[in-house]
Amino acid sequence: MKQLNIGIVGSGRIGNVHAQSITYAIPEARVVMVTDVIEENARKLAEKFDIPKYSSNYMDLINDPEVEAVLVCSPTPTHADISIAAMRAGKDVFCEKPVHTSIEKILEVQKVAEETGRKLQIGFNRRFDHNHSRVGSLVREGKLGNVEIVKITSRDPEPPSPEYAASSGGLYIDMMIHDFDMAMFLAGSDVVEVYAMGTSLVDPRIGEAGDVDTAIVTLSFANGAIGVIDNSRRAAYGYDQRVEVFGSLGMAADENDGDSTVRVSTADGVVGDKPKYFFLERYYASFTDEIRAFIKAVQTDGEVPVGIHAGLMSVVIAKAAKLSLDEHRPVKVSEIYGG
Amino acid sequence: MKQLNIGIVGSGRIGNVHAQSITYAIPEARVVMVTDVIEENARKLAEKFDIPKYSSNYMDLINDPEVEAVLVCSPTPTHADISIAAMRAGKDVFCEKPVHTSIEKILEVQKVAEETGRKLQIGFNRRFDHNHSRVGSLVREGKLGNVEIVKITSRDPEPPSPEYAASSGGLYIDMMIHDFDMAMFLAGSDVVEVYAMGTSLVDPRIGEAGDVDTAIVTLSFANGAIGVIDNSRRAAYGYDQRVEVFGSLGMAADENDGDSTVRVSTADGVVGDKPKYFFLERYYASFTDEIRAFIKAVQTDGEVPVGIHAGLMSVVIAKAAKLSLDEHRPVKVSEIYGG
Amino acid sequence: MKQLNIGIVGSGRIGNVHAQSITYAIPEARVVMVTDVIEENARKLAEKFDIPKYSSNYMDLINDPEVEAVLVCSPTPTHADISIAAMRAGKDVFCEKPVHTSIEKILEVQKVAEETGRKLQIGFNRRFDHNHSRVGSLVREGKLGNVEIVKITSRDPEPPSPEYAASSGGLYIDMMIHDFDMAMFLAGSDVVEVYAMGTSLVDPRIGEAGDVDTAIVTLSFANGAIGVIDNSRRAAYGYDQRVEVFGSLGMAADENDGDSTVRVSTADGVVGDKPKYFFLERYYASFTDEIRAFIKAVQTDGEVPVGIHAGLMSVVIAKAAKLSLDEHRPVKVSEIYGG
Amino acid sequence: MKQLNIGIVGSGRIGNVHAQSITYAIPEARVVMVTDVIEENARKLAEKFDIPKYSSNYMDLINDPEVEAVLVCSPTPTHADISIAAMRAGKDVFCEKPVHTSIEKILEVQKVAEETGRKLQIGFNRRFDHNHSRVGSLVREGKLGNVEIVKITSRDPEPPSPEYAASSGGLYIDMMIHDFDMAMFLAGSDVVEVYAMGTSLVDPRIGEAGDVDTAIVTLSFANGAIGVIDNSRRAAYGYDQRVEVFGSLGMAADENDGDSTVRVSTADGVVGDKPKYFFLERYYASFTDEIRAFIKAVQTDGEVPVGIHAGLMSVVIAKAAKLSLDEHRPVKVSEIYGG
Repeated sequence: MKQLNIGIVGSGRIGNVHAQSITYAIPEARVVMVTDVIEENARKLAEKFDIPKYSSNYMDLINDPEVEAVLVCSPTPTHADISIAAMRAGKDVFCEKPVHTSIEKILEVQKVAEETGRKLQIGFNRRFDHNHSRVGSLVREGKLGNVEIVKITSRDPEPPSPEYAASSGGLYIDMMIHDFDMAMFLAGSDVVEVYAMGTSLVDPRIGEAGDVDTAIVTLSFANGAIGVIDNSRRAAYGYDQRVEVFGSLGMAADENDGDSTVRVSTADGVVGDKPKYFFLERYYASFTDEIRAFIKAVQTDGEVPVGIHAGLMSVVIAKAAKLSLDEHRPVKVSEIYGG
Repeated sequence: MKQLNIGIVGSGRIGNVHAQSITYAIPEARVVMVTDVIEENARKLAEKFDIPKYSSNYMDLINDPEVEAVLVCSPTPTHADISIAAMRAGKDVFCEKPVHTSIEKILEVQKVAEETGRKLQIGFNRRFDHNHSRVGSLVREGKLGNVEIVKITSRDPEPPSPEYAASSGGLYIDMMIHDFDMAMFLAGSDVVEVYAMGTSLVDPRIGEAGDVDTAIVTLSFANGAIGVIDNSRRAAYGYDQRVEVFGSLGMAADENDGDSTVRVSTADGVVGDKPKYFFLERYYASFTDEIRAFIKAVQTDGEVPVGIHAGLMSVVIAKAAKLSLDEHRPVKVSEIYGG
Repeated sequence: MKQLNIGIVGSGRIGNVHAQSITYAIPEARVVMVTDVIEENARKLAEKFDIPKYSSNYMDLINDPEVEAVLVCSPTPTHADISIAAMRAGKDVFCEKPVHTSIEKILEVQKVAEETGRKLQIGFNRRFDHNHSRVGSLVREGKLGNVEIVKITSRDPEPPSPEYAASSGGLYIDMMIHDFDMAMFLAGSDVVEVYAMGTSLVDPRIGEAGDVDTAIVTLSFANGAIGVIDNSRRAAYGYDQRVEVFGSLGMAADENDGDSTVRVSTADGVVGDKPKYFFLERYYASFTDEIRAFIKAVQTDGEVPVGIHAGLMSVVIAKAAKLSLDEHRPVKVSEIYGG
Repeated sequence: MKQLNIGIVGSGRIGNVHAQSITYAIPEARVVMVTDVIEENARKLAEKFDIPKYSSNYMDLINDPEVEAVLVCSPTPTHADISIAAMRAGKDVFCEKPVHTSIEKILEVQKVAEETGRKLQIGFNRRFDHNHSRVGSLVREGKLGNVEIVKITSRDPEPPSPEYAASSGGLYIDMMIHDFDMAMFLAGSDVVEVYAMGTSLVDPRIGEAGDVDTAIVTLSFANGAIGVIDNSRRAAYGYDQRVEVFGSLGMAADENDGDSTVRVSTADGVVGDKPKYFFLERYYASFTDEIRAFIKAVQTDGEVPVGIHAGLMSVVIAKAAKLSLDEHRPVKVSEIYGG
C-alpha cells in the first residue's frame, strides 16, 4: 500500500512525538510537511526527521496537494479552525484534544466533518494505552458482565504553576477531560449527570487563582452504571494512572507501570518501583498507537476509533462539572448540551 | 491482673464470636454469663465455652454483681436500652453497631455514658483489621502527610434477600455505616457533607423494595480532605474490602486477603486467589482485637479506641446520605445533627 | 464423636503449641496429661490449659489407660524410644521430626509401627501450610501436568549460635530436613540422588564449628523430575519460605506471608511488608492443622497424612547430602539406605 | 559529535534488529553498509533502512574505509574470523555470542583484540535488560551487601526441533550460556566450579539426539558465593526470565514482564497477564541498549561493558557443565581453561 502523506500543524512537544512515531514506527505513512507559527520550530522538526517541507503558515500545508492527512497539534484555541480548514480542503484530520472550549465551535467542527465526509479523529490517546485498553476490551467482550461501577484515579506528579492553572480553563477541562473520555470508553456509555467536588489542597495559589487542584467527580451513565473520578495535581510518588471497572461478572483493574519489576527485600521492607513519572514516558506507546489507528482508518476507509462525539461530550461533561462545583449541586449533562 | 468478668447479651453469631475470642485468645478476661431471648441459644453458647451462667433475661445479667463488663450483641433496636441499663448498673459496655437508628436514642446513650462515667465502646471492628489499621497508623504517624483523598471500596459477595433489604433501613445504614466510620478513622476527621448516589443494578427487587444495591457516596471532611466510598451488594469474586489514603507525602492502599499467596501460571494466564468470601473469616481477628482493646481500656482505665462519637456520627452520616439520595443534592451533616 | 484423649510428652515450645491448638481449636480432642523431665514445665503447661494430669516421667503418661494418643515433643534423641514405648502400650503416636538421627533407630520405629498397627504421624507441619499445601494440591490434581522442576527457598531470619550449630547435626539435618520432605511432597516422588553445596558466609564461627550456613542442594527424583533447595541461616528481611513447582502444563509458586497487604507509595518507592519473622507466627496454623489431621486419622482409622516413610527418607537424604558435601560428589540415596 | 559509521555483517534476524535500533533510536550512529552471504538478504535490509551499501562478501565491508565499527551478526562459526579480520583492519567490533565454540579460537580473538587495541564487545544483551540490570546495579551499589546466593530461572516458551537441538552444541552452550554470563554479572565474580544436572522431559527426541531439555546447574563463584540456574526448553505460560540475588543485607528479585498490569477478578480467581512470549519482544530494548553502550564506548574511548572475558568464560563454563553432566561429577572451570 502506498504510504499516506501526512502534514503536521504545530511543531511543539506533541507534534514532535507524532513525527517521531510516524518516522520510526509507522511504515504505512510519512510526514511530508510540518508547520509552526515559530518557523524555527518547524524547521528544526523537519530537519530532525528528514521531513521535506516546512512553513510558518499552516495554510501552506492545507493547500499543499501532496498532504493527504493533517495532524492538528497547534495550541487549543486554533484546533477547531484548522481542522475545519483542513477538512474543507479535502484532508482527513487528527485533532488533539480538547477540540475547543466552546461547545458551539465543536459542533461547527462536527458539522463540517459530516458535510465533507472526511475522517476526524480526536486525540484521546489513553484509550490506546496497553493497560486501560485491555480493561476496555474486557468490557466490550462481556467478560465483566454489565458494567455497574467505573473508577478512575488520575494524579499528576507535580502541580502546574498558578499562572497556568488560572489560564487553563480549570482542572476539569484541562486535566480531568481525559478521565471523562476514559469513563465513557470504559462504561461503553455516555455520561448523563455529574456531581463535582473540588478543593485546593496542593497549592493555595491555585485556589486563589480560582481553580481546584484536588477533585472528585461522580458520574451517572446512560446505561445505568455509576462512576467516580479522582484527580490530584500532585502525587509524591509519581504519575498515578489507574482504572477499575466493576461489573456483574467481575472486576478488571490496572496498576501503574514502573521502570522494572524488581523488588528489593531488606530490613526496611519490600520495595518496588514507583510509577513512571513523566506522562510522555508513561503514555508514549499510546501516542504511536492512536496515530497508527488513524492512518489505518484513512487507508481502509474504516471508522476512526475516537470520533467527534468523544471530543464533544468530554468538553460538555467538563463544563457540567464546573457548573456543578460552582452551584454545588448535581448537574445534568443536558443542561449544557442536548437538553 | 485479675481476669475481667464479662457478660454477653445476645447469643447469636456475633455473641458466639466474642465468646470464642475471650475464651481462647484473651486470657485477661472470661465470660461469666450469657443471655438470649431464646433461652436455648444462651444455654448452647454457655455449654460450648464452659460459661457458668445463662439466662433468657438480660436483666439477670445486668443485675449480676459478678458481671463487670457487658457486650451488647442483641438485635439492633435493643442496643441502646440495654447499654443504658448496663451503664446505670455500673457496668462498662461494648455495644455492637449501629447503636440505634434514632439519633435521639444515641444521644441518650451518650448522655448516660457521660453521667455514669462508664466505658462505652462501639463495635466498629474494621478499625482493628490488620490491613486497614495499618493504613490508619500510617496516617496518624504522619507518613502520608496531610490527608487529601480517602477512598473506600466495600462490596459484599452476595446480595441479601429483598425482604431483608426492605427491613434493614437501607444500604447506607445497614452496610455503608462501616465505611462511614472507616472514612472518619482514616481521615482523622469528621465528615461535614455528603452526596449520595445509589441505584439498583444487582437485584431489581431490592429497588422495588425501596433500597439501592449499588452506591457511591462522596464525603467532605472537617479537615478539608475529600473522599469517596463505593458499595455493591454483590461481587462475583467475593468480599472486596479495600481502602486507600492519599496525602501530601504519598499514598497507602491495601489489597484483599486471599487464602494463599500461590500464583498459578499456565497457558490461560497467571491466576491468584480470590478474596476471602465470608466476612467472619475475613475479619475474624479484628473481632478479637476490638474486644482485647476494650478489655484493656477497662482494666487500665484508658480511653476506649472507638467511642460513642463514632457510633453517633456514623448514623448521622448514613441519614444524611439517605436524605441526599432522596432529595438528589449534597447534604450537610449539620442538617441531621448539630446544626 | 467422643473426644480423643491426648497425652503430650515434652512441655517445651512445641508441646505448648500443640496443647494450645487442641484446647482452643480442635474440639474433637482434649489434652489429659502432659510430662516433662523438668516437672515445673509440665505443671505450668497443665495449669495454663486446665490439663488434669502432669508428670516428670513420660512412662506415667504411657502407662495411663486414659491416654489414647501421644504427641512426642521431647528432645530429638528421645523421639524414637518414646514413640516405640507408646506404640507398644497401644497408643497412636504423633512424633516430632526428626524421628532420630540414626537410620537404624528409625527403622526400628517403623518396625514397631508395623507390628503394633498403631498410627504413627511425623511432624512435618509445613505440608499443612496454607501456601505450600495449595501448591501440593495443584500437583496432585494434575493442574501442572508432569512435575519437571521443584524449587524450594528456605531462609531463617537469624543464625543460631555457633554452639548450637556444632551440636545440631549440621544444617542439612537440622534445617534442610524440612525442605527435603517438602521436595518429596511437592514432587510426589522420592529423592534418589543429591548433590550438596555448602559454605559458611553468615558467621565464620559456624564454619569453624564444622557446619555450613549457606547451602544449595540439587535433587533427582524417582519420577524423573529434578529439583533444588537453597538455605541460608540469615535473611536480613525475615523468614523466607517459598516453593515453586514447574510442570508440563505450568507452574505454581507461592510468596511469603506478610503482616498486611498494605503498600505505601512515597517519593522513596512502593513499600510492602516484610515476610513474617518468626517461624511460629508464620507456620502457626500448620501446626494446628497437622494435629487436626492426626486426630482425624485416629478417629476414622484413616491413613496418617505424613507417615514414617517421610520421617525415614528425610533423614536418609540429609545424610546423603552431608556425604555429598564431605566427598564433593553426587551421592545416591541408596548409598545411605535401601541399596 | 560525528555519527559513527557502522557496518553490519549478517542480515538475518539479529542484524535487522540492530539496524533498526541504530536507524530509529541511536542518532549517534548510522549504518553505512550491510552484508550477507545471501545477497538478497543484504539488499533487502539495506533497502528497509535506507542503508547506502550492501554486499554478499563481508570483506567488502571490512575493506571499506568508511566503515568504522562492525557488528558481527553472522552464523556462530564465522564470528571469530570476521571479528579478527575486522579488528586487523582497524575497526571496532561488536560480536554476537557465542564468540566461538572453541576455546582456542576465542583466545585468538582475545589476542588480536589486545594486539590491535580495538574495542571488542560481546552480545550478552540481557545484562542491559531493565529488570536484570537493575538487580545488577543494586549489587554493585552494595545495597544487598555481600553476594551469597544467585538464582536464575530461564525457560523458553517452546522447544526447538530435535534436529536443531542435535546441532546446537547442546543446551548448556546454546541456551544456558546467557545465564552463565548473567550469573557472573550478578555475582560480580567469575565461576570456579559447576555441577550440572540435565534430563529430557520435554521431548524424548531431544534426549535421543543426545541433548537435554530440562537442566539445573549449580555454581561456585570466586568470591565465595554460590548459585543455581534452572532451564527448560518449554514453559506452558511463556518465556520465563527471572533472577534473584541474595546477600548479607537483603535480596533483589525480578518478575517477568507482561503485556499489561491488568488483573481480572471473577468467580474463577484473580487473573493477570502471562509473561511476554517471544524473546525479541521481551528483550527488544536490551538489544538497543547494548548497541548504544558499544557506540558510546567507541566514541568516548571508554571501556566496553561486556568484554571478551565474558565471551570466553561463558563458553568455558558451558563446556565445564557439559563435562560435569557427562562424567556426573562437579567440574572445576580450571579443568577446561586456565588450570
